[in-house]
Amino acid sequence: MENSNTSTAKSATVMTPEELFAHWQGHRDLTRRTIEAFPEKEFFTYSIGGMRTFAEMVMELLAIASPGIKEIVTGKTEEFKEHVDHKNSKKVILELWDKTTGELNEYFPKIKEEDFHKAIKSFGQYEGTVQSSIFYFIDNEIHHRGQGFVYLRSLNIEPPFFWERDK
Amino acid sequence: MENSNTSTAKSATVMTPEELFAHWQGHRDLTRRTIEAFPEKEFFTYSIGGMRTFAEMVMELLAIASPGIKEIVTGKTEEFKEHVDHKNSKKVILELWDKTTGELNEYFPKIKEEDFHKAIKSFGQYEGTVQSSIFYFIDNEIHHRGQGFVYLRSLNIEPPFFWERDK
Repeated sequence: MENSNTSTAKSATVMTPEELFAHWQGHRDLTRRTIEAFPEKEFFTYSIGGMRTFAEMVMELLAIASPGIKEIVTGKTEEFKEHVDHKNSKKVILELWDKTTGELNEYFPKIKEEDFHKAIKSFGQYEGTVQSSIFYFIDNEIHHRGQGFVYLRSLNIEPPFFWERDK
Repeated sequence: MENSNTSTAKSATVMTPEELFAHWQGHRDLTRRTIEAFPEKEFFTYSIGGMRTFAEMVMELLAIASPGIKEIVTGKTEEFKEHVDHKNSKKVILELWDKTTGELNEYFPKIKEEDFHKAIKSFGQYEGTVQSSIFYFIDNEIHHRGQGFVYLRSLNIEPPFFWERDK
């Protein structure tokens, strides 16, 4: 009976937690390669139309991903810290990116399957469910990375392929 | 027993088909407001770094959404037609957008729950599952709309709020 239930759940679901996580890590890998494509100087200084630099957008993504998932797992409100002492070095940012990857690998699988529709307030203020919050994190990353692609194109640099989600 | 199975399926799923569809229609509503924010002329002519105009990107989205979902439902390969006779009129594009919304409302609910993990080839060539294909359609829209936001900012026009998904 246990098996029969599990199989019903699996076939009726659009996406399993494992698939959602693989989907995000695929996107995060593409974002990492987008950071790598920027020249060091322009990553921290270049912008269009008064928008933020790509470095500032990436710091937002770093502030969201690992703290957001930790908060979901522990139930303890995390602080939203968008600024890091990057020393104008892409290496520092990429190290933080990889640290985040490791933390997500540790925490994401700890989200309980039955909790994906639980109501939460991310960072103590953004109302949603566990599921809608995680999709917001991912969609926000896709949105800003798309903007980074425009910065790269206007710098005459070819961005990575959007459809390639793994190295 | 029937009820107990359904409830297991519901609680164990990250996202129901209805939630996935509402998520996409929320994004589509934001994209529609992004089209509306463009001045008529710049929608069809403005670009940065040799990229496509926002009109061209939107025509790609129109070519994907309704034919892509119809193909999933009917199993018949759809043609990928990226160009429409828009007469340089946003009104024509917005009418096609709304026609697509109606077609999605008709076809999306016909996707069988047990088919979301079925292997398919979108437009006869892009391999994936029903689920991964639909996420590709949505992610591609988020990606290009983010680029449209940069075009708007560089035209000194404020884009709609990214987090607002309904009118």
